[in-house]
Amino acid sequence: MLLEPLQPDEMQEFEAYANAAAAAVEEELDHLLPQVDDSEESRLFEAMRYSVFAGGKRIRPLLIIATNEILGGNKKRALRVAAAMECLHTYSLIHDDLPCMDDDDLRRGKPTCHVQFDEATAVLAGDALLTLAFEILSDKDTHADPMARVRLVSLFAQSAGAQGMIGGQMMDILAEQRDKEVDYDQGALARLQRKKTGALFSACCEAGLILNGGTNEEYHRFTSYAKNIGLAFQMVDDILDVIGNEEDMGKATQKDDDAGKVTFAQLLGVDGARRQAEFLCGQAADYLRPFGDKAHMMRLLAKFVVARSN
Amino acid sequence: MLLEPLQPDEMQEFEAYANAAAAAVEEELDHLLPQVDDSEESRLFEAMRYSVFAGGKRIRPLLIIATNEILGGNKKRALRVAAAMECLHTYSLIHDDLPCMDDDDLRRGKPTCHVQFDEATAVLAGDALLTLAFEILSDKDTHADPMARVRLVSLFAQSAGAQGMIGGQMMDILAEQRDKEVDYDQGALARLQRKKTGALFSACCEAGLILNGGTNEEYHRFTSYAKNIGLAFQMVDDILDVIGNEEDMGKATQKDDDAGKVTFAQLLGVDGARRQAEFLCGQAADYLRPFGDKAHMMRLLAKFVVARSN
Repeated sequence: MLLEPLQPDEMQEFEAYANAAAAAVEEELDHLLPQVDDSEESRLFEAMRYSVFAGGKRIRPLLIIATNEILGGNKKRALRVAAAMECLHTYSLIHDDLPCMDDDDLRRGKPTCHVQFDEATAVLAGDALLTLAFEILSDKDTHADPMARVRLVSLFAQSAGAQGMIGGQMMDILAEQRDKEVDYDQGALARLQRKKTGALFSACCEAGLILNGGTNEEYHRFTSYAKNIGLAFQMVDDILDVIGNEEDMGKATQKDDDAGKVTFAQLLGVDGARRQAEFLCGQAADYLRPFGDKAHMMRLLAKFVVARSN
Repeated sequence: MLLEPLQPDEMQEFEAYANAAAAAVEEELDHLLPQVDDSEESRLFEAMRYSVFAGGKRIRPLLIIATNEILGGNKKRALRVAAAMECLHTYSLIHDDLPCMDDDDLRRGKPTCHVQFDEATAVLAGDALLTLAFEILSDKDTHADPMARVRLVSLFAQSAGAQGMIGGQMMDILAEQRDKEVDYDQGALARLQRKKTGALFSACCEAGLILNGGTNEEYHRFTSYAKNIGLAFQMVDDILDVIGNEEDMGKATQKDDDAGKVTFAQLLGVDGARRQAEFLCGQAADYLRPFGDKAHMMRLLAKFVVARSN
């Protein structure tokens, strides 16, 4: 079923919620990231903080926090897991922006890490953020039960690893070198994006379930929700790369086309991709129907994914 | 107390032990690394395997296996932890060799990962190996008790992270840009190397203790052993960079001097650094005195660290 478009009052409500969640996660991150000090290696800490606090939608943390809320979980625990996820996401952006990868100079309206510092520092800052994510998850403050902590570690490692996000990035790089007409259809692109973006979106909801001992039924519903909005999120990204402007987006646009990347916008057209994204978000919301009003904010999130302009 | 030099029959005994341990770890790694297949992202799996199976002394796995043996632990568990450590160590080499870092073309007599593949693939292969280390540790096959697994994750993350190995690498890069005469003395260099090399050496022994529930006294003795041989290992590396030749070493030599790096060989002279390394290894062996004959192989390892020629 298609969702009604996001209304202005809903947008306001969602944004207030999202901003409060982002502020809480940023406070947690400030506490968890190494403090800049007068040690020699402090340049590394500066670079980690620079990229983590460069803004961003904090949509992955929001998924963890919202899932945890629906299940009535402890807020502090969810914030720690959300902070770990944001470390992991930021690492992937820093490495993705490197000259040997996407070679991006601008991210969220600011110079990327390797431009602000240098390439070596950016590689190390990414490595350190990935490592920190696992340090946070394994700490006893994240959950009293060591089994829950070790399951979170396993979840993050599998979703972000060679079979998940990094595998998707490898596919993405290789896709630029292929003959698009021959090799790429919507199925292949969806497989790439399920790995590159979808795996972490899904892990966010699963993390909320691990924190609260979710049922199999809940796993199915929440991860289906996450996979659908993850794919829709990527479709909207592709659309915004075509129709957005650099100022709104805070990064270079029209990059996909320049780089010879295959996108949903190319395969389906801008309108086709938008219709597909709307369909996926409607489907996502449907999965959460049994949770009734408790899932209100996650339904707004599904609408927001389609409505966002940056 | 100074150790007697390694005798030829001891060298033979140690090498047989080390080779058997390396073979067992490599078999475990072959099982744990993703299989090369016909998927698009398989290039990533190839790069991971290429660097992991490019040889190497496997001295960190050996430390885990030998510590575990002294404590009478389960061999299979130690092999999994050793494999995870080797993934972590290999990731650090791949990223260290990148053009923006040490810019090395040759490692263990073979082209480095970014030369054999390309820079983007090398960045991703390193990322994937770091992530895989945590996936291995968190898996139930590594230890039946989730508390032991989560402690291993925490240990690896802290030792390899911003306050450990990566911090040491940041210091190392910055040290090249400094005025050596002013900024570097033996204390500063020892601090750098404790982070860059020592933290993982120490973590290897600690991992063996976590697997077997070691006492505080055992922690103290084994980690002191590890820190001493870790520093000695680095001193011998510095010496070999000066006096070794490229063929024996399987990598470019005289690189430290060319790069303007401060080394123990410079600060203490080749003979001074060797005497210091011998002293440290003697001290290391002393810490294991209470374990008597059970620590035989770790005493040989301490002698080997000084005697090695590549």
